[in-house]
Amino acid sequence: MINPDILYRIAQTLEDRKGTDPASSYTAKLMDKGLDAILKKVGEEAVETVMAAKDGDRLHLVYEVADLWFHTLVLLSHQGLGPNDVLAELARREGISGIDEKNARTAGKE
Amino acid sequence: MINPDILYRIAQTLEDRKGTDPASSYTAKLMDKGLDAILKKVGEEAVETVMAAKDGDRLHLVYEVADLWFHTLVLLSHQGLGPNDVLAELARREGISGIDEKNARTAGKE
Amino acid sequence: MINPDILYRIAQTLEDRKGTDPASSYTAKLMDKGLDAILKKVGEEAVETVMAAKDGDRLHLVYEVADLWFHTLVLLSHQGLGPNDVLAELARREGISGIDEKNARTAGKE
Amino acid sequence: MINPDILYRIAQTLEDRKGTDPASSYTAKLMDKGLDAILKKVGEEAVETVMAAKDGDRLHLVYEVADLWFHTLVLLSHQGLGPNDVLAELARREGISGIDEKNARTAGKE
Repeated sequence: MINPDILYRIAQTLEDRKGTDPASSYTAKLMDKGLDAILKKVGEEAVETVMAAKDGDRLHLVYEVADLWFHTLVLLSHQGLGPNDVLAELARREGISGIDEKNARTAGKE
Repeated sequence: MINPDILYRIAQTLEDRKGTDPASSYTAKLMDKGLDAILKKVGEEAVETVMAAKDGDRLHLVYEVADLWFHTLVLLSHQGLGPNDVLAELARREGISGIDEKNARTAGKE
Repeated sequence: MINPDILYRIAQTLEDRKGTDPASSYTAKLMDKGLDAILKKVGEEAVETVMAAKDGDRLHLVYEVADLWFHTLVLLSHQGLGPNDVLAELARREGISGIDEKNARTAGKE
Repeated sequence: MINPDILYRIAQTLEDRKGTDPASSYTAKLMDKGLDAILKKVGEEAVETVMAAKDGDRLHLVYEVADLWFHTLVLLSHQGLGPNDVLAELARREGISGIDEKNARTAGKE
């Protein structure tokens, strides 16, 4: 099982690249272009995820979801946020069974 | 720092709910509706992520990215995949500096 | 051949419904919810267009493109714009062969 | 008021370019790349429409909706369809007040 700390390592790399020469890396270039460029990528990767799933191509689907998660990490970093914020929100929902709102009133049973 | 194992716990919950009564939970209902319904949610959450970012509302942005990641986990589960596959792809890219393709030829330097 | 004036008739209907009781029609309700609700619909219909095309279901594709065009008309109306603005832009591009930027320098030849 | 026949003229231009040298025009190149490339553009333009609307930039919004309509025309052409099919669907809905489903039962009153 892959250590999910990879999300934190990517976030750290993104922080390190902020403000570095846009020519030095894909990420630095994208960050330099700004919010709209990052959001376009998030939209693109979502559409490509949908298309890969419709094709029933599981290998391609994994690739596109990885692209989508990666670009949301870039977005979070650009906005002064990180994977911790998203994971905390997911954990919070789990705590109140919020993942499954129907069960919210019986939280703790799962 | 939130333990990113939360992604695996959510994936496990999704597996557990597969094939359960659609009326019993949001997730079971969505899985029951099938691939197209799940993909519509992925598309919706991506658009809502873009909108929250444009609003500059960071709290809302975290919420929407959590929704987006959650629904990609539902999609992965529906396709017999899981967060491990996506994290492995991200780790693989990190290994070859693939996160930053411009540097791919100089992998190992980072 | 269908008279494309239908676009203007729809736009007129949308104008007429602005500010009417939200309970009186789908359009009045959507307008009343505001910009974000309209944009979510535009995003949704775009994703559904992509999915219908991937299915190779031409009848469904026509239906989804109609939904997409309709909701962009609602968006235009909400922003004080109309089909005339979009058609003028398309005509302008045609005039300078802008539809096909590669030919822009030789405009007039077509 | 712009003559909405522009939609038919664009569709005709698209037909004329089918199968021509991909290097000769943007459209021929996009058609040559195939369905997935066209769908990515539809998705991109939808996201850019959402972003322009959120910016409250009406001039930019018109430009993006024009891009979106144009790329749906390319999609229709690629699938052996045209604006006539979409306009017929919109007219059909108008006929049954389908634009406004709440009124469908009182069709003819408008």
